[in-house]
Amino acid sequence: MIDETHSPAKKSWVSGADAHPDFPIQNLPIGVFSPPAGAPRGGVAIGDHILDLAKALAAGLISGKAAEAAAKAELNDYLALDGNERAALRKHVSDLLDGSTDAGKDASSQPSLLHAANKCTMHVPARIGDYTDFYTGIHHATNVGKLFRPDNPLLPNYKYVPIGYHGRSSSIDVAGPVKRPTGQRKPATQDAPDVGPCRSLDFELELGIWLGGKGNSRGETIPIARARENIAGLCLLNDWSARDLQAWEYVPLGPFLAKNFATTISPWIITAEALEPYRISQPARPEGDPKPFDYLWNEEDQKSGSFNVEVYMYLTTEKMRAAGAAPHRLGRSAMKHMYWTCAQLVTHHASGGCNLSAGDLLGTGTISTPDDSGLGSLLEASRGGAVAIELSNGETRKFLEDGDEIVFRAYCTAPGRPTIGFGECRGQITG
Amino acid sequence: MIDETHSPAKKSWVSGADAHPDFPIQNLPIGVFSPPAGAPRGGVAIGDHILDLAKALAAGLISGKAAEAAAKAELNDYLALDGNERAALRKHVSDLLDGSTDAGKDASSQPSLLHAANKCTMHVPARIGDYTDFYTGIHHATNVGKLFRPDNPLLPNYKYVPIGYHGRSSSIDVAGPVKRPTGQRKPATQDAPDVGPCRSLDFELELGIWLGGKGNSRGETIPIARARENIAGLCLLNDWSARDLQAWEYVPLGPFLAKNFATTISPWIITAEALEPYRISQPARPEGDPKPFDYLWNEEDQKSGSFNVEVYMYLTTEKMRAAGAAPHRLGRSAMKHMYWTCAQLVTHHASGGCNLSAGDLLGTGTISTPDDSGLGSLLEASRGGAVAIELSNGETRKFLEDGDEIVFRAYCTAPGRPTIGFGECRGQITG
Repeated sequence: MIDETHSPAKKSWVSGADAHPDFPIQNLPIGVFSPPAGAPRGGVAIGDHILDLAKALAAGLISGKAAEAAAKAELNDYLALDGNERAALRKHVSDLLDGSTDAGKDASSQPSLLHAANKCTMHVPARIGDYTDFYTGIHHATNVGKLFRPDNPLLPNYKYVPIGYHGRSSSIDVAGPVKRPTGQRKPATQDAPDVGPCRSLDFELELGIWLGGKGNSRGETIPIARARENIAGLCLLNDWSARDLQAWEYVPLGPFLAKNFATTISPWIITAEALEPYRISQPARPEGDPKPFDYLWNEEDQKSGSFNVEVYMYLTTEKMRAAGAAPHRLGRSAMKHMYWTCAQLVTHHASGGCNLSAGDLLGTGTISTPDDSGLGSLLEASRGGAVAIELSNGETRKFLEDGDEIVFRAYCTAPGRPTIGFGECRGQITG
Repeated sequence: MIDETHSPAKKSWVSGADAHPDFPIQNLPIGVFSPPAGAPRGGVAIGDHILDLAKALAAGLISGKAAEAAAKAELNDYLALDGNERAALRKHVSDLLDGSTDAGKDASSQPSLLHAANKCTMHVPARIGDYTDFYTGIHHATNVGKLFRPDNPLLPNYKYVPIGYHGRSSSIDVAGPVKRPTGQRKPATQDAPDVGPCRSLDFELELGIWLGGKGNSRGETIPIARARENIAGLCLLNDWSARDLQAWEYVPLGPFLAKNFATTISPWIITAEALEPYRISQPARPEGDPKPFDYLWNEEDQKSGSFNVEVYMYLTTEKMRAAGAAPHRLGRSAMKHMYWTCAQLVTHHASGGCNLSAGDLLGTGTISTPDDSGLGSLLEASRGGAVAIELSNGETRKFLEDGDEIVFRAYCTAPGRPTIGFGECRGQITG
């Protein structure tokens, strides 16, 4: 539901918030942070500041079950609220940060409610029950498939099954560093594997989907018409990948050590409520593709089940950092390149009776463009490591080197609406 | 360390405990249970009874950090204790249940400390952080591989890499029912997949490994010489598998809906301390197999890294139940058929920097015998569904039918030692 919290006319009393590229008052993403000398707690990003929900609760500026849940150091109870409860809290927080309301005037006189974001430490915003990584980026799946099967890149199940696998939740973090993993590698030139540091370390550009609402019990399912109730928000996700380890270990049971050393997410949950004005239809399937099975098909989901999110990838090398040079922009992709909607992923995941809960996290899979302008991994950009890409400062890369830092950013746009952003997903490789 | 808690001469004041096939006083497995009208709490199985650790704590019969952790409704803090702390608690509990000690005489005068096990409800004993399923049963891997690649059943990585994949923790439970999953299936006779109830529902006989101790931080590893510190105990595990769903969905990222609808574990943690007298050497690798890489190799682990555990599988059909007939024994296998030790699994899992924690659960993978006497799945026993097996009452099975119940039991034996058991892992299929 688009309501007054989304009004383009709405202004905040927080200095700089209205012109902020990510966090104007129309966004209000929720996360968990520690102030310089304090314990972790819930907060809302507003411009370059964080509204301290624990302090706002203590001061009586917000109250009730939803506010209490949102002020906690783990947001699982907040995520488990139903959409109406989360929307009501959003309305209160919006009023609090709006200089034209009584609540906003009251709050603006209490500067201790705000913290400078750059002085705070962000945390993973919820206790992640289970993490599942999907593979919905059809151009990525095609590009990767071409490296192995040039004539038949997509496997036969791809257009029927939202392909996914279980990932590791313990190693998901909102900040680097990411240590280059050591593991078993078997180059084609060797008869036997050896052990050593990964030689083809990669990133993968994904969105994360935070599950919320009631979920389902084991043995029950989530009908597609109700899947949306279980999507609480989005974030950016970097599915770091050790390609040489992956190539050797992944048959027959899928990626394991090649992925579980680290996953980096952006710390702010861009809420389902904030995303509402940026809904777009799911792009039509190419002619000849099978229609999804009934359990995955919903007209309303097709009409409005995606979001107009563009995603940018940047690489900063040690040399760039030393020279004070701008990061190299690796490319730009968009959520519309997902072959399945978020609702389809939720419904498929639960379709055999697997129980989902608030605080579970889904990865969309790598989102690449159909052309070379937004390839979501170096594996694709370097054609499996065959071709080095040239960076803006003249350096080249096939895969990531120590000191390289990857940053993702994402923005939602809609006609007549302010742009809202996801903040950064940032991680640096160490040796 | 083998100490007086393991003494074969030790007797309990609890009626029937000394002759109990699973839970004599030398075992003392820990779990979480609810008494008929009470909340979940920690307990220790003794004979057909459960010692209520919360009541023992309240009565001052046990005390301290370890006792407090063991009395909780989630045993994560208990599992995180170091081995010496857990062993000290074991000693106190052993004394409490021993009729010849002052503590035991005191406890035996307080009958409310004990509950009849068959009147209690068991729970998953810890909040499972992450669940990982390995594939260490080399005969199982060979049998399954033969169905697809008769001449070359084991993939090239099998004898180098402890193959594993991430599983779903939310759907792990200690009790049935297990609802037959619906999903996408594509028989070879069809051009396109369809959707319907699984037609080849199977069990998999595994052991579960409860992780404990300090674990490792992200980016750090666990040297094989210290891996044992992170193994807190064992249980039985049934990795229910939907073979038709699996065949269609599993490329290229591994099993997903085919496994995540349910995993059943036995509720009692057979502690590392209890298992100590039953250590055996890891069976030597067949001549010609590669020696494990250094990071997976430890002489002490080879000498004593396995346990003398035999595992039994039973099937009860609706007809058997209606006739009051005994279950059909499907077979008997043993832990010694694991190609890798528990320590090797822990060390490999952390070798790229993936952080492990107390409360994580590992599955060993299906443990089958080299011959047909203990095939750990119906997929193997029925040769991929080609040959029906005959049951003791004349019925036949290729895969599981609605109403079928699978029970696993396991026993540890050692010369001059009492047998200790794992209790039951029990799950029944519903339509």
